[in-house]
Amino acid sequence: MKETINVMLAGPRGKMGTEALKMIQQTEQFKLVGCVDRKNNGMNVHDIEGLPNIDAPIYTDAEEAFDRLNADVFIDLTNPETGYKHTKLALHNHIRPVIGTSGFSEEQLADLKELSHIQQTGIVIAPNFAIGAVLMMKFSQMAAKYFSNVEIIEKHHDEKLDAPSGTAVKTAQLIKEVRDSKIQGHPEEKETLEGARGADVDGMRIHSVRLPGFIAQQEVIFGQSGQTLTINHNSTDRQSFMSGVKFAVEQVMEIDHFVYGLENLME
Amino acid sequence: MKETINVMLAGPRGKMGTEALKMIQQTEQFKLVGCVDRKNNGMNVHDIEGLPNIDAPIYTDAEEAFDRLNADVFIDLTNPETGYKHTKLALHNHIRPVIGTSGFSEEQLADLKELSHIQQTGIVIAPNFAIGAVLMMKFSQMAAKYFSNVEIIEKHHDEKLDAPSGTAVKTAQLIKEVRDSKIQGHPEEKETLEGARGADVDGMRIHSVRLPGFIAQQEVIFGQSGQTLTINHNSTDRQSFMSGVKFAVEQVMEIDHFVYGLENLME
Amino acid sequence: MKETINVMLAGPRGKMGTEALKMIQQTEQFKLVGCVDRKNNGMNVHDIEGLPNIDAPIYTDAEEAFDRLNADVFIDLTNPETGYKHTKLALHNHIRPVIGTSGFSEEQLADLKELSHIQQTGIVIAPNFAIGAVLMMKFSQMAAKYFSNVEIIEKHHDEKLDAPSGTAVKTAQLIKEVRDSKIQGHPEEKETLEGARGADVDGMRIHSVRLPGFIAQQEVIFGQSGQTLTINHNSTDRQSFMSGVKFAVEQVMEIDHFVYGLENLME
Amino acid sequence: MKETINVMLAGPRGKMGTEALKMIQQTEQFKLVGCVDRKNNGMNVHDIEGLPNIDAPIYTDAEEAFDRLNADVFIDLTNPETGYKHTKLALHNHIRPVIGTSGFSEEQLADLKELSHIQQTGIVIAPNFAIGAVLMMKFSQMAAKYFSNVEIIEKHHDEKLDAPSGTAVKTAQLIKEVRDSKIQGHPEEKETLEGARGADVDGMRIHSVRLPGFIAQQEVIFGQSGQTLTINHNSTDRQSFMSGVKFAVEQVMEIDHFVYGLENLME
Repeated sequence: MKETINVMLAGPRGKMGTEALKMIQQTEQFKLVGCVDRKNNGMNVHDIEGLPNIDAPIYTDAEEAFDRLNADVFIDLTNPETGYKHTKLALHNHIRPVIGTSGFSEEQLADLKELSHIQQTGIVIAPNFAIGAVLMMKFSQMAAKYFSNVEIIEKHHDEKLDAPSGTAVKTAQLIKEVRDSKIQGHPEEKETLEGARGADVDGMRIHSVRLPGFIAQQEVIFGQSGQTLTINHNSTDRQSFMSGVKFAVEQVMEIDHFVYGLENLME
Repeated sequence: MKETINVMLAGPRGKMGTEALKMIQQTEQFKLVGCVDRKNNGMNVHDIEGLPNIDAPIYTDAEEAFDRLNADVFIDLTNPETGYKHTKLALHNHIRPVIGTSGFSEEQLADLKELSHIQQTGIVIAPNFAIGAVLMMKFSQMAAKYFSNVEIIEKHHDEKLDAPSGTAVKTAQLIKEVRDSKIQGHPEEKETLEGARGADVDGMRIHSVRLPGFIAQQEVIFGQSGQTLTINHNSTDRQSFMSGVKFAVEQVMEIDHFVYGLENLME
Repeated sequence: MKETINVMLAGPRGKMGTEALKMIQQTEQFKLVGCVDRKNNGMNVHDIEGLPNIDAPIYTDAEEAFDRLNADVFIDLTNPETGYKHTKLALHNHIRPVIGTSGFSEEQLADLKELSHIQQTGIVIAPNFAIGAVLMMKFSQMAAKYFSNVEIIEKHHDEKLDAPSGTAVKTAQLIKEVRDSKIQGHPEEKETLEGARGADVDGMRIHSVRLPGFIAQQEVIFGQSGQTLTINHNSTDRQSFMSGVKFAVEQVMEIDHFVYGLENLME
Repeated sequence: MKETINVMLAGPRGKMGTEALKMIQQTEQFKLVGCVDRKNNGMNVHDIEGLPNIDAPIYTDAEEAFDRLNADVFIDLTNPETGYKHTKLALHNHIRPVIGTSGFSEEQLADLKELSHIQQTGIVIAPNFAIGAVLMMKFSQMAAKYFSNVEIIEKHHDEKLDAPSGTAVKTAQLIKEVRDSKIQGHPEEKETLEGARGADVDGMRIHSVRLPGFIAQQEVIFGQSGQTLTINHNSTDRQSFMSGVKFAVEQVMEIDHFVYGLENLME
């Protein structure tokens, strides 16, 4: 493994960006070589209020940044539109991108995959950087081969607008890939109050709890005669994403191809 | 407290009845003086296969049993119809009834209350003998005074036909008595999959999980900014009812009036 | 109930103090009439960076503040030493104190109780303002009358120095008051790895989990043949204290005596 | 896959044996061709009280049984000593053994592995047939690569003599294989009550709860800044083993070598 990994980052002033700067600062093996920011061209990270005390230049022009900085890895924590442009620039410059978004279109993903192949440059795109959530989904898919009865309960704060959560739906889809379609519960079961049995995805049931005091939690419960197996992920702080970003930066150094989803970097 | 409590029991061969006989046998302070059974008139408990080895006569005629046996307490574990007749006989004989049923009509309950008053004889009728479940409901009602946001998740085996469970509905009703009516969740929340947010009772939500491997479990979750409080009852065996029967027998000796629900015997 | 409750607060710039100011601002029935602060004499709350935009004067001299401000309730969120002096001043001025500390000595508590009696002025001292935690302890004590087997599991972040937590020890003591002393587990049970069965308090067991990702959580588990009853409190943010402060302010207006612990304000 | 799998079973009258017979009866693809029993030579399964109504001969002499019965798979649910003899006989007869025991010595395992190789006959030995428990251990080992902080809480009935449980120790050992040795918790943490922090295995902590009402439960909790991941297995009935026996019978038909542990049959 390369002794020090030189990292550049776009979006340093966002909540995620600032957490990522702290993570880079605390990781001995990582070195921040510079940032791309919409503002603050020519300034230094340690001059910006709220950012950690790191000596690294800031560029507003991404092309200039990629040109001048000698980076191994490029982390983008901006938005899908800007991120897509940055990612292409990074690949053109043979700088490995680590991108956290679920907002790229199928077409954009195909483009980036092709460009990664042409440039022989590794890239990791992760819709979810929370390693615990990724493992929960991976384990759920594995368990579903042996347990055909499963329900999902996700619990979030009551400011959340949509139910069920994206992670719950994604988990159900992953399970569906390996589980034979099956109606669960007693064939003659009845709801005396509508909705009690939750949402139905291919016979599986999803329940969404919305209460103040929760942040983001999901449990996937598998049942079989005489036993239950439950996988529970509880997210209490956006710091949870940083171990995933760190992992992706380490892993992208070891590959020369396109990877979508952290689960595909895990054995 | 009376040193030994003489107990008679109707329905010794049912699952609950046999458990109750074991409980009586194991309780030093209790003595079984006889049983009422549809069959086996003139036989003895220790002669019946499957029943514990207790020396106590069996009567098929309830009137004869109440006439002959010198009992302090009468436990009925038959069915509502037979149980109602037995209970009236018990009160007429000044034998304190302990009855486990949710099947009596409002009218029957009123009759028994009046009869208990006339006879100055204590009586306990309990729709639920699981002390843990009774406490869960009692605590939920108390907590609801301080937490206005609450959801109920009940989990049962997948042979259960109705959803939500009777205990979940009863819990919601008890909470409703003390909680100001309120729609929970974000006012603009949307179900992208129907049923995800569960059943609605006065703005509270109930979720019913049905999976093999569960027996009977319920959690009541209260949420408030920065904290959650959860009360969880898990029933794994019908033995759970026996501590409630024992408690009711002890308590009925201390009262001379009608009590409905174990919660009203608890401080 | 008095239409508007005039509140003064000591310690506005601490974390708890600032949260309390926000709570006062958001509560229609409450009005902040002024603050006592070590600094900023003569300034106004809305001038201090980080504090909510409320128009209320700041005094450094507590005597002057009590003299000038027409308050109904005095909230102290400083430290035990300063808080004790403030509390006496408040009582002398017939302003009802609401104090959140576990740091007063027995002697100090006795003094304040006597002073409250002499002045016929209500006072609430709460070692814990998290209503959920207070209810958890209250329910645990109630349940222990019916369940003699109990274990406590508390989970905190791994920066916590002491194990078990103060709340766990307090819970065990409250249970001990109502539970007959009893060694739990099998009489011949053996630890093949020392410490597996946790800490022993009068035969009860306490287990302390310390892991990053937890904030502060405690579950109290009661077991009986065939059933378990679990009471779980999870604290995710110091906002959890504010509903308790609000409750104490409302309640202190209704009393003219000394109350220690929010549980004694709950029915 | 072979259309019907002919199964013979040793130990039909034990609790596990009887459950296995029921499972065979309920599995369309399986056919019971006979049993080995210490008693009842020459009788038929359907003649023995308590066994399911299956037409299959019983032999007391194992050699005779292996000689006469045309079996594909041999299930042994006796004891390690008898089971070892049976297993060798089965391999000599090219009948695939499925053996549920943790009682074989290293030497015996080596012998059976060699014999399996010589005979080119598949064999599955499983110390634990509960698929959920096996998955819990497998997932725990996988998660430990990404989460270095972990604690185990196992909960059993209070008749259990040893603490921690064998499964908890095994889980910790599996985690130890992949996790860098590490002291968890704050370096200066202190137990104010001895044992609070549980048993120490290579810096990990194990906590053993013993309460009536529990059967057998284990949760493995992984923590990281901002998130926790928990894997929980709850066993409520020995039926939980039967899906594992069924799985092993199906899988042993697909292999011609020695496999120890169901986890090695899972992808």
